[in-house]
Amino acid sequence: MAVRRLGIIMHGVTGRMGATQHLARSIAAIRADGGVDIGGGDRVMPDPILVGRNADRLAGLAEEHGLSRWTTDLQAALDSAEDTVFFDSGTTQMRAGLLRRAIAAGKDIYCEKPSAASLEDAVDVARQAANAGIRHGVVQDKLFLPGLRKLRMLVDAGFFGRILSVRGEFGYWVFEGDWQPAQRPSWNYRKADGGGIILDMLAHWRYVLDNIVAPVRSVSCRGAVHIPRRWDEKGEPYDADADDAAYATFELEGGVVAQVNSSWCSRVRRDDLVTFHVDGTHGSAVAGLTRCVTQSRVNTPRPVWSPDQPQPIDFFDTWQDVPDNQPPANAFRLQWEAFIRHVTAGEPFPWSLVEGAKGVQLAEAGLKSWAERRWIDLPDLEP
Amino acid sequence: MAVRRLGIIMHGVTGRMGATQHLARSIAAIRADGGVDIGGGDRVMPDPILVGRNADRLAGLAEEHGLSRWTTDLQAALDSAEDTVFFDSGTTQMRAGLLRRAIAAGKDIYCEKPSAASLEDAVDVARQAANAGIRHGVVQDKLFLPGLRKLRMLVDAGFFGRILSVRGEFGYWVFEGDWQPAQRPSWNYRKADGGGIILDMLAHWRYVLDNIVAPVRSVSCRGAVHIPRRWDEKGEPYDADADDAAYATFELEGGVVAQVNSSWCSRVRRDDLVTFHVDGTHGSAVAGLTRCVTQSRVNTPRPVWSPDQPQPIDFFDTWQDVPDNQPPANAFRLQWEAFIRHVTAGEPFPWSLVEGAKGVQLAEAGLKSWAERRWIDLPDLEP
Amino acid sequence: MAVRRLGIIMHGVTGRMGATQHLARSIAAIRADGGVDIGGGDRVMPDPILVGRNADRLAGLAEEHGLSRWTTDLQAALDSAEDTVFFDSGTTQMRAGLLRRAIAAGKDIYCEKPSAASLEDAVDVARQAANAGIRHGVVQDKLFLPGLRKLRMLVDAGFFGRILSVRGEFGYWVFEGDWQPAQRPSWNYRKADGGGIILDMLAHWRYVLDNIVAPVRSVSCRGAVHIPRRWDEKGEPYDADADDAAYATFELEGGVVAQVNSSWCSRVRRDDLVTFHVDGTHGSAVAGLTRCVTQSRVNTPRPVWSPDQPQPIDFFDTWQDVPDNQPPANAFRLQWEAFIRHVTAGEPFPWSLVEGAKGVQLAEAGLKSWAERRWIDLPDLEP
Amino acid sequence: MAVRRLGIIMHGVTGRMGATQHLARSIAAIRADGGVDIGGGDRVMPDPILVGRNADRLAGLAEEHGLSRWTTDLQAALDSAEDTVFFDSGTTQMRAGLLRRAIAAGKDIYCEKPSAASLEDAVDVARQAANAGIRHGVVQDKLFLPGLRKLRMLVDAGFFGRILSVRGEFGYWVFEGDWQPAQRPSWNYRKADGGGIILDMLAHWRYVLDNIVAPVRSVSCRGAVHIPRRWDEKGEPYDADADDAAYATFELEGGVVAQVNSSWCSRVRRDDLVTFHVDGTHGSAVAGLTRCVTQSRVNTPRPVWSPDQPQPIDFFDTWQDVPDNQPPANAFRLQWEAFIRHVTAGEPFPWSLVEGAKGVQLAEAGLKSWAERRWIDLPDLEP
Repeated sequence: MAVRRLGIIMHGVTGRMGATQHLARSIAAIRADGGVDIGGGDRVMPDPILVGRNADRLAGLAEEHGLSRWTTDLQAALDSAEDTVFFDSGTTQMRAGLLRRAIAAGKDIYCEKPSAASLEDAVDVARQAANAGIRHGVVQDKLFLPGLRKLRMLVDAGFFGRILSVRGEFGYWVFEGDWQPAQRPSWNYRKADGGGIILDMLAHWRYVLDNIVAPVRSVSCRGAVHIPRRWDEKGEPYDADADDAAYATFELEGGVVAQVNSSWCSRVRRDDLVTFHVDGTHGSAVAGLTRCVTQSRVNTPRPVWSPDQPQPIDFFDTWQDVPDNQPPANAFRLQWEAFIRHVTAGEPFPWSLVEGAKGVQLAEAGLKSWAERRWIDLPDLEP
Repeated sequence: MAVRRLGIIMHGVTGRMGATQHLARSIAAIRADGGVDIGGGDRVMPDPILVGRNADRLAGLAEEHGLSRWTTDLQAALDSAEDTVFFDSGTTQMRAGLLRRAIAAGKDIYCEKPSAASLEDAVDVARQAANAGIRHGVVQDKLFLPGLRKLRMLVDAGFFGRILSVRGEFGYWVFEGDWQPAQRPSWNYRKADGGGIILDMLAHWRYVLDNIVAPVRSVSCRGAVHIPRRWDEKGEPYDADADDAAYATFELEGGVVAQVNSSWCSRVRRDDLVTFHVDGTHGSAVAGLTRCVTQSRVNTPRPVWSPDQPQPIDFFDTWQDVPDNQPPANAFRLQWEAFIRHVTAGEPFPWSLVEGAKGVQLAEAGLKSWAERRWIDLPDLEP
Repeated sequence: MAVRRLGIIMHGVTGRMGATQHLARSIAAIRADGGVDIGGGDRVMPDPILVGRNADRLAGLAEEHGLSRWTTDLQAALDSAEDTVFFDSGTTQMRAGLLRRAIAAGKDIYCEKPSAASLEDAVDVARQAANAGIRHGVVQDKLFLPGLRKLRMLVDAGFFGRILSVRGEFGYWVFEGDWQPAQRPSWNYRKADGGGIILDMLAHWRYVLDNIVAPVRSVSCRGAVHIPRRWDEKGEPYDADADDAAYATFELEGGVVAQVNSSWCSRVRRDDLVTFHVDGTHGSAVAGLTRCVTQSRVNTPRPVWSPDQPQPIDFFDTWQDVPDNQPPANAFRLQWEAFIRHVTAGEPFPWSLVEGAKGVQLAEAGLKSWAERRWIDLPDLEP
Repeated sequence: MAVRRLGIIMHGVTGRMGATQHLARSIAAIRADGGVDIGGGDRVMPDPILVGRNADRLAGLAEEHGLSRWTTDLQAALDSAEDTVFFDSGTTQMRAGLLRRAIAAGKDIYCEKPSAASLEDAVDVARQAANAGIRHGVVQDKLFLPGLRKLRMLVDAGFFGRILSVRGEFGYWVFEGDWQPAQRPSWNYRKADGGGIILDMLAHWRYVLDNIVAPVRSVSCRGAVHIPRRWDEKGEPYDADADDAAYATFELEGGVVAQVNSSWCSRVRRDDLVTFHVDGTHGSAVAGLTRCVTQSRVNTPRPVWSPDQPQPIDFFDTWQDVPDNQPPANAFRLQWEAFIRHVTAGEPFPWSLVEGAKGVQLAEAGLKSWAERRWIDLPDLEP
């Protein structure tokens, strides 16, 4: 049994998501558990160097997780042969530039979504990565949520028969910020700062649908700015001009229709913050972050529409839980482990920069559909 | 205190909906209760004559409800001065022609929706009725469901603040007809016979949205034929070429977005067979046929998105029932009583043939949107 | 980022309330958490010196909380320039005198309520503080209870529409002390020792009503000595001549009526030890120490009074929780943090000695109302 | 065993309360059960003659209850020797005049409360009845509610030890009448029509307190017109100038304090529409219309006031039901049976016209207290 070291440049992990999910819950947790099993009795121990601009914050994070390496000098990190993977969860605006530098330095690449701020950049980065022959991947965390893993398992098991349609509901009420503080940062609601739910969420829906149901081929999307005035982190009012809800319909390969609403202006009455309801000829399922329930055609009730008496069927009791037969695990860590096995042991890793570019493609198409009030088709991305 | 008689020609009540809802639950029930109170201590007793082609069926229905009058001679009925109201719940294809004959005969008009098979006909019938100076109305039963009456009450009470959006889900799984009989007639699934869920349901959504939320201005609709082969009443397979699902988004006056799915190919996991979820700045509500629940902004939870642990909030417990403060009553009967007060006592009746034509307009626009893959605006109908 | 020191003379924290709430749960807890964030990246670290008469007790408390400074020489503490804030939670009788000395020494002032044993003294102390130009505040802890913060949030959110009335119930059964020990000190039940529920609680109701609903303008109060004989800490019987219950009605600005009962002779059947039930045109709420529940007008049931059958409505199920969207925190500490930001960063602090004097004013007016059996108006206090 | 007939003139039973409670649920029910058992194996069968102005309504009521006698000629009824009891549940304004005529005719008297529209009249009627030597009584139905009978039983059993205080809460939300119809007649909210909650309810609280706890000696009452605009039976807005809430405190003989709120503008969060909470040295009880729960001093919890954690005691679980050991019976019928035994068998009947006058006295004193903003004492009524 051998333990290999893997040097990873982690950039932009001082933000909330980077620090919690990528550093604490993924890399630090993997280290605490003795690294990643890559088969054959071998393990890989990730050895991160934290990179950013705020030395105090980097030092603090490093100390918190028992790490000795951090720097504010990105170029030096890229120049060093000690680290072969470059990871980025910094701001979207900087991402493409950073990825190009890392590719040029011959690093393998792993990054948060979106892989670039524009489709053009996202495709360009993917092409450079291909030309450079490096390995690469983009975070697609929702695929690794327990609920969506169960949904994928149902598809693989042929449970649905032919899939007909998908209904997705995502979101919750984000407080305006005046009478109680908002739960999300104010830049999410300002166009100029890269805000907007279409840019944020359609990238997710692309890989969820592509990977679990069928490839997305067209989109009709109606965005909305429901709450035009919000209050920021300091209690100051501001114009919220970015879309805070999106009502999208997708056509998938094979004639499946997926209708997915995303909203920060809706009060939740459903199983979870996001739910995907899939109907097929032989059965249906509803998946949330954690749970997934099913109804087979043989268990499908035969309701009567009556204007005269309350519905006697409880439409929640007629569904059955998919049991937790897989051990629960953090979604981000699962994908990190797969990526580490990919770069060290050559295990397949389908969530590449090309897949990341598809997410950007769908978000851009959604915005165009909203502007032009029509369906937008998604061409295949040039390989 | 006086009791007036009102003679009503009832055509097409031999069908299921006509016999049950219009005859048994409405007119016969009103008769059993001593007629309709029209104020001032006066009452109106409806006196129907049943008209159709099947003499046996008519005689049977009349006997069942203690009625003496029925005929297969429609023209004779129209010619008689004894009956001043003409009601039709026969087939859509015949409707416009029948209404024109009744208008020409000077009758007041009440009919099932759609008021005609095409927008052109529907507008023409409305115009003829206006020129003739008769009173007229179209059935809009869903407005009188207890759940939707509560929803309307919430709007009137200002509960929502500014309404932002509506999510509607209608439908249930209609069995294919092979391994268990279908719950609906086969013509619903054949284009040539006037089938299709868009024609059927969009007419409903028009008056529901217009009357409860705000007038519908535009539509984007994606129909689908999810199940192309079904088995009919005799167990014979047939090509089901009419749309059995419709994914529609509407723009309403004032910027409200309404996203409404209708489907006969979806297994139900929600409060009722149809639900409308309305979100407003000050509160939200979800209405079914009977119940309606609310969540005020002050009761809105602050959920945390966590990929690591099951959602701790039960998103059903955080809603509160709107109590049954109004006495329950059959939706069809309520509208019949309003129509009878309209024709006998001049009480306002907003659900006219013009409103009926608007329903046809939306259905046609929905089909056009599907065909042309773009948003379709709804012009004001010529008065 | 800088950390500033703030020297605080803490007098009278050897009592139960002072030791637990002001020292342990507030100042010591703030110190353990690295001080108070005053914005701009700066923090203030409180550095208390404990002052009292019992050296052993002071030394013990200091050691318990890791403090090095305590003294029995108050004047020396007041003379030292090292400490700029004087805090008192000692006996009411001594308070005004101590505050005058501290004001004369130029200290900023923070103290428990009542700010003096008489209105005259309370106003005089407030005037001296104003003349001296120092900063000052009085503890109004109930405003910071989670339940009352939620109630205030409902008012700010406009939930109630126009507020009509408030019903308050405070208290519980305080055992007489014979067959089981009393839960409260015996001086509370002796007039000569400053006992009486009117003096104690009406000061609280003043700031609760003033700050959450509307300013109190008049009072009608009926005190009572329900249990005239009690047993003290040593098991000796004594004459309990102070009021142990008060039935008060208040007129608030804008026509709101507040009816508040306070009692140490009542067995509790309600949500919490203190509850405030607020009724408004658009909704009602009931707040306890922690929870707060609401009923909107649209959820208001329509009960039937029937002498013949048990009430079918459960009048507790028809209310909805206000969720815990704000992080829980100790009420006393919250106000301490606000006061520290006030004296160090100039943040507004509305709970001044003038507000403290208003509490004394209401208590005195309550006693006068009881004696004269009539309503007593509350004039504005001279600024 | 003998069955005696008792002729009763029933005036004013065409109203809702008279028809339902006095005729249907009392007299007709007694007749259906074979009359009233007056001891010694004898029974009395009431034989009512219905008197009023609307012949149709009288005839209808008579038929409904299998009665043969009704008339619009009151004087003829009074002149007839066949009927010896006169009962009135007509309007308050007419009552005293009718009672004087019946007393002059030598009839025994039973009537709804209030026994007159003014204290002066009420006392005068009682004096005339005494001088005439007839038997008389006033309806005091709430005493016969199952919950209040249990409360009285507790008093009789010595459960409370010395009673200290009473808290009463009566009422519910009466809808304004615009967005949903009001539950009570509009005259209740108009001063000129005899409306107002003080006139209505304080008469009830007098006999409840007098009979169950101790005689009322003084009152302090604050009325309020919380909702000044309401909509009447026809949907027309009107000025609601009568008091719709009353916050009253009573001093009872023996030092008991009773604080009772009555309101048509409060949303209910308590056990029942009316509750009386009685605290005594040895135990407490809370009675509603039907249920009554108790807490003995040995079961009294010892709660801790903590600003830091939710109250761990459930203050509803710590009470114990008083079981339904008495058979349930209609409150009005119980008092009717007692009155019939009084006039036919001489059984004592404490609820005389003098008691009725006391109710009027308290209502008048309540209004005076509100006007003069002070306590009003209640002198003994001249016998």
